[in-house]
Amino acid sequence: FQRGDAERSGRGRSESGTILTLSLCLLASLSVCFCVCGAEDSAMENIVTEKKAEESHRQDSADLLIFILLLTLTILTIWLFKHRRFRFLHETGLAMIYGLLVGVVLRYGIHVPRDINNVTLSCHVNSSPATLLVNVSGKFYEYTLKGEISANEVSDVQDNEMLRKVTFDPEVFFNILLPPIIFHAGYSLKRRHFFRNMGSILAFAFVGTVVSCFIIGLLMYGCVMLMKQIGQLGGDFFFTDCLFFGAIVSATDPVTVLAIFNELQVDFDLYALLFGESVLNDAVAVVLSSSIVAYQPEGDNSHTFEAMAVLKSFGIFLGVFSGSFALGVATVSLTCPHVTKFTKLRDFQLLETALFFLMSWSTFLLAEACGFTGVVAVLFCGITQAHYTYNNLSPESQDRTKQLFELLNFLAENFIFSYMGLTLFTFQNHVFNPIFIVGAFLSVFLGRAANIYPLSFLLNLGRRNKISSNFQHMMMFAGLRGAMTFALSIRDTATYARQMMFSTTLLVVFFTVWICGGGTTQMLSCQHIRQNEAELLHELERVGVDSDQDNSVSGVFLQIGPDGIERRSTKQESAWLFRLWYNFDHNYLKPILTHSGPPLTATLPACCGPLARCLTSPQAYENEGQLKDDDSDLILNDGNISLTYGDITVSTDGESLCFGTELTCVSELRACDWLQEGRYYVLSVICNWLQKNACQSA
Amino acid sequence: FQRGDAERSGRGRSESGTILTLSLCLLASLSVCFCVCGAEDSAMENIVTEKKAEESHRQDSADLLIFILLLTLTILTIWLFKHRRFRFLHETGLAMIYGLLVGVVLRYGIHVPRDINNVTLSCHVNSSPATLLVNVSGKFYEYTLKGEISANEVSDVQDNEMLRKVTFDPEVFFNILLPPIIFHAGYSLKRRHFFRNMGSILAFAFVGTVVSCFIIGLLMYGCVMLMKQIGQLGGDFFFTDCLFFGAIVSATDPVTVLAIFNELQVDFDLYALLFGESVLNDAVAVVLSSSIVAYQPEGDNSHTFEAMAVLKSFGIFLGVFSGSFALGVATVSLTCPHVTKFTKLRDFQLLETALFFLMSWSTFLLAEACGFTGVVAVLFCGITQAHYTYNNLSPESQDRTKQLFELLNFLAENFIFSYMGLTLFTFQNHVFNPIFIVGAFLSVFLGRAANIYPLSFLLNLGRRNKISSNFQHMMMFAGLRGAMTFALSIRDTATYARQMMFSTTLLVVFFTVWICGGGTTQMLSCQHIRQNEAELLHELERVGVDSDQDNSVSGVFLQIGPDGIERRSTKQESAWLFRLWYNFDHNYLKPILTHSGPPLTATLPACCGPLARCLTSPQAYENEGQLKDDDSDLILNDGNISLTYGDITVSTDGESLCFGTELTCVSELRACDWLQEGRYYVLSVICNWLQKNACQSA
Repeated sequence: FQRGDAERSGRGRSESGTILTLSLCLLASLSVCFCVCGAEDSAMENIVTEKKAEESHRQDSADLLIFILLLTLTILTIWLFKHRRFRFLHETGLAMIYGLLVGVVLRYGIHVPRDINNVTLSCHVNSSPATLLVNVSGKFYEYTLKGEISANEVSDVQDNEMLRKVTFDPEVFFNILLPPIIFHAGYSLKRRHFFRNMGSILAFAFVGTVVSCFIIGLLMYGCVMLMKQIGQLGGDFFFTDCLFFGAIVSATDPVTVLAIFNELQVDFDLYALLFGESVLNDAVAVVLSSSIVAYQPEGDNSHTFEAMAVLKSFGIFLGVFSGSFALGVATVSLTCPHVTKFTKLRDFQLLETALFFLMSWSTFLLAEACGFTGVVAVLFCGITQAHYTYNNLSPESQDRTKQLFELLNFLAENFIFSYMGLTLFTFQNHVFNPIFIVGAFLSVFLGRAANIYPLSFLLNLGRRNKISSNFQHMMMFAGLRGAMTFALSIRDTATYARQMMFSTTLLVVFFTVWICGGGTTQMLSCQHIRQNEAELLHELERVGVDSDQDNSVSGVFLQIGPDGIERRSTKQESAWLFRLWYNFDHNYLKPILTHSGPPLTATLPACCGPLARCLTSPQAYENEGQLKDDDSDLILNDGNISLTYGDITVSTDGESLCFGTELTCVSELRACDWLQEGRYYVLSVICNWLQKNACQSA
Repeated sequence: FQRGDAERSGRGRSESGTILTLSLCLLASLSVCFCVCGAEDSAMENIVTEKKAEESHRQDSADLLIFILLLTLTILTIWLFKHRRFRFLHETGLAMIYGLLVGVVLRYGIHVPRDINNVTLSCHVNSSPATLLVNVSGKFYEYTLKGEISANEVSDVQDNEMLRKVTFDPEVFFNILLPPIIFHAGYSLKRRHFFRNMGSILAFAFVGTVVSCFIIGLLMYGCVMLMKQIGQLGGDFFFTDCLFFGAIVSATDPVTVLAIFNELQVDFDLYALLFGESVLNDAVAVVLSSSIVAYQPEGDNSHTFEAMAVLKSFGIFLGVFSGSFALGVATVSLTCPHVTKFTKLRDFQLLETALFFLMSWSTFLLAEACGFTGVVAVLFCGITQAHYTYNNLSPESQDRTKQLFELLNFLAENFIFSYMGLTLFTFQNHVFNPIFIVGAFLSVFLGRAANIYPLSFLLNLGRRNKISSNFQHMMMFAGLRGAMTFALSIRDTATYARQMMFSTTLLVVFFTVWICGGGTTQMLSCQHIRQNEAELLHELERVGVDSDQDNSVSGVFLQIGPDGIERRSTKQESAWLFRLWYNFDHNYLKPILTHSGPPLTATLPACCGPLARCLTSPQAYENEGQLKDDDSDLILNDGNISLTYGDITVSTDGESLCFGTELTCVSELRACDWLQEGRYYVLSVICNWLQKNACQSA
């Protein structure tokens, strides 16, 4: 019994002691890190110039180390929270808190006076070239342009070197940290639900974001006018600035809410609506804000209304968005699936994964190089990769790519949020104006409301599966602002207006992430949103269907009498459009781009025979007999399938199918269905499942 | 039969057509990319300054895109080579060839004249601060120091903007690309073989590298003297420069050879010797070169011999190397294993992987921040992680971390090699001197010979398992120069001497990678190096042992009579030292840091009871009865185990163990062995395997 005793006490002690020890270790490392930062500068005098770069590199390492340790601390605490099942604070909220704490220490705890040598040299020249050659007593040094600094900043900058050191180039967020986040969102989009609610999602993303942007812009303009009246405005603030603010705070970030949704297995339609909306409205907000910035009337006063300029901005919006969309979809669908389809790359998973990664990255770079928006392109690239390329990958590579982008997303996201916390204290040009802040909170709230409720009402006119009022409240509540809003607002903080926007945006993000994010669980139970489908899924899963796979039964609208679960039925919006798209995708795109789908030789007209044979992969013939189309469950319209299990009977409206007989040869059934003018498309999964269970038992 | 026909013809056509199509696609993309690059500059005039940064960003994207597409092309061709089993050209050699081609196009095909606005502004000032504020008609712009440019470069730089654009900051290699490569090397070191040949590896790495460095340095100094005599030297070239050259070309890179070894499953001892040597001598070369640079006599002439300065350099070498080593080992072993041991992080693989990644990265940053060498620290960090932390990870995270670093290593390596090819044409200050080049090739050859042959002779005096002469020839042949040599030589190309070194180094790398790398298969068969152990392994594997796992039987020295395979026996060098280390590691470090090993309560003296109980993980008690020590197969000395399978009999010298009876309780046997004064340590794997097979059948 002695051993059991030791074991128990060891376990107890280790649990409680670990976090303490670890936190102490990390705090010690952090302080070492600060010390290193501090020590550099004092020793910096009378050293030759060459060494300066080395010193600066050491300091950069130390600065970066601060962030890495911050992230480590965050991860450990996340673990503790997950372990204890705390749900009132999400990891991103936590990252912000740690960022805030370190920010306070950096701001008030450490003061590193700026090295005098660094300040100097306001050589007066005529232009600001990207590269500058400086002649220092015969030796030439090359300098690169970092950016403009406002006049009042010049003195600030000299104040505290430390704060300046931990300030990253804002472009880092756009070019390094956001792309993996956005790509991951696209890549992990639950496609079935996404396509099923496509109409509503597009409406929320496009109409909703624009509405929200203008409402916020107008309200803020009123607010700014008020401030001008009472003399609280310390600089220029134009209507375009207000609209810009509207655009950036219209980008919602669902990470917190969706993480909880995922854990609680909340209704999949709500999940798809929220996720799809927030992913797409990020893209819309980016393009919208850049076209607002591009608004330049030709007259002297550059902030008046001018129809031509508005039209031009609108044109830019359309051009950039569609360009980025086309680029993201086209480059990927033209190269990556073909590469993975025709080469036997699947034998070498490392090559496959590397190729996948490089192709996705090159889409981003290509979009940026062509003047489109890389972030938008990468989103659609992710969706396309998931839709086509993913099916061609070997199972190992499917796991690898998923895990890789999951990791990159996790690191980037937590980095951004902890940086957000940090920057509240380390950013040196905050402009906090109470009126503006109150106005912003109010208008953000109203803008979200003006987005969700009217649109839901309009959409409900067309949807059979209505967006119920508690769903609407939940969507209203889940309008958090996050990484994208932050990245957009920090991108340019040169003017007074932009600085005020940045400070206010930070507060909006903090508030929504902590309050709305933390209250999700409560809100869900308050709105009586239960995991209705999830329960069914779980039940089915127990029977034998794998719900993790994309082709789970969750897309079916089950009607189960005796269990008392609500009867649900759906009418897809604009189903004919999707049926068209689905037919095209299934018959032509899928066979061309992937191994799945019917062989092209069967779907293309006879005259295209040679081409069809050339484009069809050998596997397609082998697959022909099988049901191997993961995404065939796109549409299920008009027909209601009612499924009772226990004693299995599936009935499609009117006709009752008795299994073991009719459904044994599912592919035949499906072929008929296609002919029945889209009356119903039985989900491949149900078929599989039934084949496995019912048919075998028959 | 029609379908079969279509299938076959489709398969044939797709195979042949794919590469053509893909190459065309990629070439098209590359040219688009070049166009974008070209178009930027011509439109760059009369645009406001703010837009310039944007343009520059677009251009950067296009430049980076060139490299990404290059890598993609490389991957596709690698696939083709692997598919067709071409072994005469390794992927790195291929990457270099593509790099060369693109370099030629950039150099001679595209001429982008430098924008006039960019050239300007040699404002004469007294110092070169890290940050420069420039006052442009009232607005302030911030510039950051990029580096010194030699006077003759100033005019060159203006010549072709394109070439300048594709030139990366040399520090990128050291701070971004090399760390994952080196970490991966450490993490994937086959530890068993590494530790078994530790003495020889250390001798080759330390003594060998220093010998090679000085021999090359001396020979090159002679060469330089000769050049001075006949007036071919166009600038200063001191003895320290020669030594520096010796240091950088002494870093061998085994990727090419080892890849082939791995494929052919060549002798594990040779593999371990080569891999261990090249991994460690990278570290030695880095530190050696930096201490040669630090050599600064106090007198007027800074290139005379001065004992104090030499001692100081030696001190720096020792200090930096041991500092980096200690930091790499200490930070990891103090934090990461504890974190993974005491927290139940293994339930959340994403967190675990992220933490692992961050801890490894922070080791690099910490070393850099403290003024040590991050690359060296990261190597030992990798070894430590593999030795301790790896055992605590969940199986999923073990896979994830391995795959992650494998991918990073692959991408970084191919990037470096393709950049190498590119830079042969795009670097603008090449100094090719025939005498220097011939001298360099000769001295590299002689330096390697003076490293391998004398050391092998000396080591063979102490080794029972001699390094045979064909192994020595193979090691001589496998002394390729690669990424590390390149990164060291490109780091500083400011002076004439350094430029000549850089150009020559490039040629050495090209030659060794193409000729030595390509000829490995021939050389192996020429030297009659067969996969002797590999065959055995394969046989055993067939029987039931998994050779992929770390605890494979390959470490055992098998003596198989009837099969006619050579009888091999080993005497470990300085076995007592390793036995000491092994005992310490097994009894104290492993139990403290991981879940494996005996519980501390058993190994520590009774007085440390509470401490031992606190530090022992709950799992250790559970594992106590089992054999769960993956690395217990470190030492197998003095005793010969002969194993005949077919009818299984294992005999340890003198005593014959008949299985099914004595070996059923393997842990008991082991316990006795430990007591028998290190007479023999039966490999846990053999035991496991026997337990599985022999004992079950008994």
